[in-house]
Amino acid sequence: MKRSVIIVAGGNGRRMGMQTPKQFLLLAGMPVLMHAIRQFHYFDPAMPLIVALPPAHIPTWTQLCAGRRFTVAHTVTAGGGTRFDTVKKALHALPETDWIAVHDGVRPLVSPALIARCFETAVKHGAAAPAIPLSDSLRLLEAGGNHSVLRENYCIVQTPQIFRAEWLKNAYRAPYCPAFTDDASVVEAAGYKIALAEGSRENIKITEPADLKIAELLMSDFCP
Amino acid sequence: MKRSVIIVAGGNGRRMGMQTPKQFLLLAGMPVLMHAIRQFHYFDPAMPLIVALPPAHIPTWTQLCAGRRFTVAHTVTAGGGTRFDTVKKALHALPETDWIAVHDGVRPLVSPALIARCFETAVKHGAAAPAIPLSDSLRLLEAGGNHSVLRENYCIVQTPQIFRAEWLKNAYRAPYCPAFTDDASVVEAAGYKIALAEGSRENIKITEPADLKIAELLMSDFCP
Repeated sequence: MKRSVIIVAGGNGRRMGMQTPKQFLLLAGMPVLMHAIRQFHYFDPAMPLIVALPPAHIPTWTQLCAGRRFTVAHTVTAGGGTRFDTVKKALHALPETDWIAVHDGVRPLVSPALIARCFETAVKHGAAAPAIPLSDSLRLLEAGGNHSVLRENYCIVQTPQIFRAEWLKNAYRAPYCPAFTDDASVVEAAGYKIALAEGSRENIKITEPADLKIAELLMSDFCP
Repeated sequence: MKRSVIIVAGGNGRRMGMQTPKQFLLLAGMPVLMHAIRQFHYFDPAMPLIVALPPAHIPTWTQLCAGRRFTVAHTVTAGGGTRFDTVKKALHALPETDWIAVHDGVRPLVSPALIARCFETAVKHGAAAPAIPLSDSLRLLEAGGNHSVLRENYCIVQTPQIFRAEWLKNAYRAPYCPAFTDDASVVEAAGYKIALAEGSRENIKITEPADLKIAELLMSDFCP
């Protein structure tokens, strides 16, 4: 059973109000993206790793890796204009594989145990995404206003999202659609079902400066 | 314009896997609930504060207040079996008021500025809840499986939720329904519209032990 992972690091840092793209920000002294890559390496050192970066950021990344002697082997691919295009291009860079994981490069705290759970669920069902319950109330926004919906009927999905390679490749043959918010939505649009694995609240996405501090705090619990 | 607030502290600590109910856990050396009360006091020292607690926890709370010389004046009411019953009972303990805020006792980081924004929106529209966008993807869970929904069409709602007193009291005359997940959903079921104010990601709800550490971290940013 051959497994590969695409780590998508397409952010340009605009949302963080910073010059540095969020995947390059330092978390406990190391760029966020290196943490994400390292977790997959811990899970399976033999698994091919593809890292998709905006073309403009590739030289910076190369320098960061050289300067820090980051030795986890990975292939860098140039991303496209959207996340959809980025993953589509990265699929071509993959070696022959049976299973493909797609992970957000700005989720540095993904644990090897979570990755293992998602692979197990994917192998059983063909496609898997880690999910966690909502702890706050949810409202649906509509043209005429907004209304309460039962949060128990929803879940939050994270990454890695893992797919039978054939399913993911088939799905990415479709034209882009704005409803594609993650890989699971692309695969689902192609007619496949997504199984849910148990996610983790610690597997946060770095979207704001405060998240870096929270991630550092959560890391100190992981690595005593 | 007379304003009051009901702070609901009904948790029994089961979800935290602890003996101590989460509203009594120490955050930066002070029980979570005291932080929440203090923020409303900072917002408006003259505003009547009702704190709804499970009857079994009232003696502990009284001791905590005495032991820590917590001098923010508040009225304690005994909660009911559900959050709905608890708020309903607390409504009877309120002095005459034009506007009622209802706040989760386990949201200790609510800022006076956020409370002010919610009151402004409520005064304009009759009912207001603070909302923030979702930063993760969302899935709808259904009998046959689950499917992707556009997270842009949803928002997360927090507290304080603030209502014209008459609206809230009318709404709480309805029989309990499982779709009542918060006060906004109760008021909405009575036919009133809920306006959204800008929430804050820092206004977190303490639901897990890790949240206490995150809250402490966020506090250190607030109070340099």
